Amino acid sequence: MTGCLTAASLGPGDPELITRAAWSALVSAPCWAWPVNQEGASYALAIVERAGLSAPAEGLALHFPMTRDPETLARAWTEAAMQVVERLHAGEDVVFLVEGDASTYSTFGHLARAVRALDPGLEVRIIPGVSSFNAAAAAIGQPLADGEEPLAIYAAPEAMRDLDALLTTFDALVLLKVRPVLDALIAALDARGLLDCAVFIECVGTPEERIVRDLSTLRGTRVQYLSLVLIRQDRARGLGQTPPGAPCTP
Amino acid sequence: MTGCLTAASLGPGDPELITRAAWSALVSAPCWAWPVNQEGASYALAIVERAGLSAPAEGLALHFPMTRDPETLARAWTEAAMQVVERLHAGEDVVFLVEGDASTYSTFGHLARAVRALDPGLEVRIIPGVSSFNAAAAAIGQPLADGEEPLAIYAAPEAMRDLDALLTTFDALVLLKVRPVLDALIAALDARGLLDCAVFIECVGTPEERIVRDLSTLRGTRVQYLSLVLIRQDRARGLGQTPPGAPCTP
Repeated sequence: MTGCLTAASLGPGDPELITRAAWSALVSAPCWAWPVNQEGASYALAIVERAGLSAPAEGLALHFPMTRDPETLARAWTEAAMQVVERLHAGEDVVFLVEGDASTYSTFGHLARAVRALDPGLEVRIIPGVSSFNAAAAAIGQPLADGEEPLAIYAAPEAMRDLDALLTTFDALVLLKVRPVLDALIAALDARGLLDCAVFIECVGTPEERIVRDLSTLRGTRVQYLSLVLIRQDRARGLGQTPPGAPCTP
Repeated sequence: MTGCLTAASLGPGDPELITRAAWSALVSAPCWAWPVNQEGASYALAIVERAGLSAPAEGLALHFPMTRDPETLARAWTEAAMQVVERLHAGEDVVFLVEGDASTYSTFGHLARAVRALDPGLEVRIIPGVSSFNAAAAAIGQPLADGEEPLAIYAAPEAMRDLDALLTTFDALVLLKVRPVLDALIAALDARGLLDCAVFIECVGTPEERIVRDLSTLRGTRVQYLSLVLIRQDRARGLGQTPPGAPCTP
């Protein structure tokens, strides 16, 4: 009897945003696995530790390098998957800790694919979670999107390639991982008179959470890797909003 | 001392997806409020009841009509807000039950705005939750979006206005509330050879959940109001995917 691999989405940082299903998986699992960076730190494990839980004796710290080199990545995913599959084949259930939501820009998809490549018959279960942008919108008390408003979610560097078109089409825009392009983004929003429609949030729900409503104060500064910008232009496609043609109302 | 209005996001249907924060709010609140339709049914209250909780004696069933008429809506939101504000002014904390996430296409934004219009000083707190599309992606075991892939979320009727452009730009597309345009959507995806990239999910996480991977079988049928279609074209912008130029790989 092989074990089951469960992805436990933990939400973006606040341990109170762990779901009941993820909590049950955590407290009943004989083995946890979690992603670590080069320094051995784990954002996902830290969320669970802030909840007062400790890793069971059986733990797998899996290294996922921060690179875009496909070969390096594929090797890391396969090595991680081999460690997980060994436990599953030994009949042990493994819970993989995931920050945010396991289906949304997450390492888990890669791990699951590598695990299935090693043994397509293994059981994989995904517990969905709260995404960073959901938590960010709640933290600033502003809807992410409403009514008939389309919403786009982009890695910020990708969005910068055609920001004009995106700002024209989308009432609501989430830009993730803004650090590498923050100054250019601020300049672009300023040029379009949209600075007041944007809010910056980093490390939402963690002790390091920071919300900046005046983006111009961030010019030339360095921000965290897990930082995002929410942009919402109220164009009256939300039901019961201000009339069509009204300017941006932050 | 006035009370605090808390939006408790409950996730899309499975009571196991209620967060720890929302659970604490539910079990400690002296008063719940929940949206009901014309027949008095409440999707949000049903989630909590499936979790084994019952509404406290102090309960407010708030009617939000299913209409797009701005005047009717504004009147309903104000009437609901007046009932909530009465409790808050009496010093009672009120927890408003929200299906999905309170910031994402949710009635709560309207209620909060109407409450603030009556008394801008009242405290409003939002507990974010799992969105239907997060849960749907988990249910089908497929990433919603990955790597550098942009993700767009649309009410399906809005998306149909320019579906070609959306399918060209977005590797990942979530179409919500597909019922009114389902046949046209199926025809459009079929014409582009993309039927295999789409999955239909309705009432995710509820006893009525249904997942349909062959959309052509839905032609001419009637589906639930809370139904969505996830479309993902693998164009190798996800890290470690198939090479650029490869066709859609469902």
